[in-house]
Amino acid sequence: MKADKPILRALRKEANLPPPVWLMRQAGRYLPEYRAVREKAGSFWTMCMTPELACEITLQPITRFGFDAAILFSDILVVPAALGLKVWFEEGVGPRLIPVHDTKTLERDPEVWRKTLAPVYGALELVRQKLDDKTALLGFAGAPWTLATYMAQGGGSPDQREAKLWGYRDPQGFQQLLEIVGDCVAAHLIAQIDAGADAVQIFDSWASGLPAERFADWVVAPAKRIVEKIRASRPAAKIIGFPRASTLEGYLQYADETGVDAVSIDTSAPIAWAAKNLAERVTVQGNLDPIVLIAGGAALERAVDRIVDRMRGHPFIFNLGHGILPETPVDHVHTMLTRIRAAA
Amino acid sequence: MKADKPILRALRKEANLPPPVWLMRQAGRYLPEYRAVREKAGSFWTMCMTPELACEITLQPITRFGFDAAILFSDILVVPAALGLKVWFEEGVGPRLIPVHDTKTLERDPEVWRKTLAPVYGALELVRQKLDDKTALLGFAGAPWTLATYMAQGGGSPDQREAKLWGYRDPQGFQQLLEIVGDCVAAHLIAQIDAGADAVQIFDSWASGLPAERFADWVVAPAKRIVEKIRASRPAAKIIGFPRASTLEGYLQYADETGVDAVSIDTSAPIAWAAKNLAERVTVQGNLDPIVLIAGGAALERAVDRIVDRMRGHPFIFNLGHGILPETPVDHVHTMLTRIRAAA
Repeated sequence: MKADKPILRALRKEANLPPPVWLMRQAGRYLPEYRAVREKAGSFWTMCMTPELACEITLQPITRFGFDAAILFSDILVVPAALGLKVWFEEGVGPRLIPVHDTKTLERDPEVWRKTLAPVYGALELVRQKLDDKTALLGFAGAPWTLATYMAQGGGSPDQREAKLWGYRDPQGFQQLLEIVGDCVAAHLIAQIDAGADAVQIFDSWASGLPAERFADWVVAPAKRIVEKIRASRPAAKIIGFPRASTLEGYLQYADETGVDAVSIDTSAPIAWAAKNLAERVTVQGNLDPIVLIAGGAALERAVDRIVDRMRGHPFIFNLGHGILPETPVDHVHTMLTRIRAAA
Repeated sequence: MKADKPILRALRKEANLPPPVWLMRQAGRYLPEYRAVREKAGSFWTMCMTPELACEITLQPITRFGFDAAILFSDILVVPAALGLKVWFEEGVGPRLIPVHDTKTLERDPEVWRKTLAPVYGALELVRQKLDDKTALLGFAGAPWTLATYMAQGGGSPDQREAKLWGYRDPQGFQQLLEIVGDCVAAHLIAQIDAGADAVQIFDSWASGLPAERFADWVVAPAKRIVEKIRASRPAAKIIGFPRASTLEGYLQYADETGVDAVSIDTSAPIAWAAKNLAERVTVQGNLDPIVLIAGGAALERAVDRIVDRMRGHPFIFNLGHGILPETPVDHVHTMLTRIRAAA
């Protein structure tokens, strides 16, 4: 049955119309049923770390919209937590961590990682039991560079300054950081596959703004290392990479060198360019502007049609260029889906 | 004498070693002499709108470092102010404006614009008198799209949401906004040239994140219109465009279609790509990472050398990929300059 899921067909480089579709952050604040669970649970972290809650939230958008994939409700910062960092979420501020400035204090025992991350795998097992046969289940993790930006800064940052400074001033120490984080990411993705994920996505949300040489060292090489580690023990694993807002050369390099099956592209990457240059290398995923999904109307319809039309005949998964925004009207998601599924 | 200024030679497509150099936001908070004036003046806006202060600040980095260009100390939000918007700067928050949602209330009389902006031209005339013969004087303005993001939002925004929503929901009204802003920008740049600027730069700081079709309509077309307006009355004007963090295709389209003499590129645009693809079209400007300038040491030296080496034989102006940051050690700027000027 697994092989018939539309997302998996796309990841095997089949071009299908209509294309399969899911949305990054589809289980999120734009859904009233999500907000209801959020209120009950009290904290975002509790929702991530309570299998029953994470399972319930993961399934909400499947029940409502019938997306082609359920992506596990979790957070990229579970990996820094497994590495021993204190992580919390401040209302209106976002994620916070006690920052690290060297690798000495990081937890390196895979058994300890596994124990910290057990609720994630528990949630996947629950979702696996409840999910229908045509909907793919996706696991995910943050990429080492993006996680390093949070770990060095102690939270989000507009310019990833602390991680860059660490990398520029202490290249070897920073390389070691990326490798330890990468080991934990690979272990986490393998465990998610074992817990029932049909495919996994690596989120490198802060891949933009790096000089070409640093992009190669800090984004491409760590992704390649993770893909190799996964494939060494799970050769059939399907892997999507999202080096968000890379340069167009960066996306091609990532596709050529990391070994991923699919590359997710941001809103600014021209879809005609992707059809011409990226789709011959990997399955393409993306790239509707989350803000046109808020705007709705004729602009939304045209934007959806353009993407579907340009990717016709290429292996493609419809998605956004970035996560869905809390202000998105639920009706607009229905409009989008109707439009995509009318394609033939 | 004008023709011998290194920046102007580069803008005429001459390739020179060492390349001329200036830094975006070079008259800024990283300089103790700037902070001293700032304290005395009381407000950022007072500094922008008092010719003697703006002149003094403009010349500070020339006196200290001998950059090849002095860029007028001013702000992109003087144009919205000329259009009748209330603009102020909140400590720790950044620029604020009373947002606009239609074009009805915008001031459209060029005489009124000129009167509001007179202090900017006064500052340029003062700098012109004091500047030596080999240092170019640069004027600048924000591009219509970037200004629209501030005008629609009432300040800065991480995702330019309000401007995008306006453009998606009301394409004609938004087009009209871009044209009115563009008229004021063109008038402002012409007046700066007349007041003594050797060249002008158009800053489109928020050109990233746009779908390709919107980039063409909201970034490229308005820049083309401004360049045409300037060239219609000042045919010899030299113009630099900075559609920051465009895609690589976007940079090429901007170079091909707008008619600018030079394109400034951000840190992520590979310098080898620029040498190969962009330098045959226009003079290239950029693209050192402002954060490697903070880091200093071997990473800074390697990054400077790489840029200078790759652009050897091409028309090039050394600059940063974005504005210099307040935390930048002054010594690192000296190191950078020594390194650039040792190139032969």
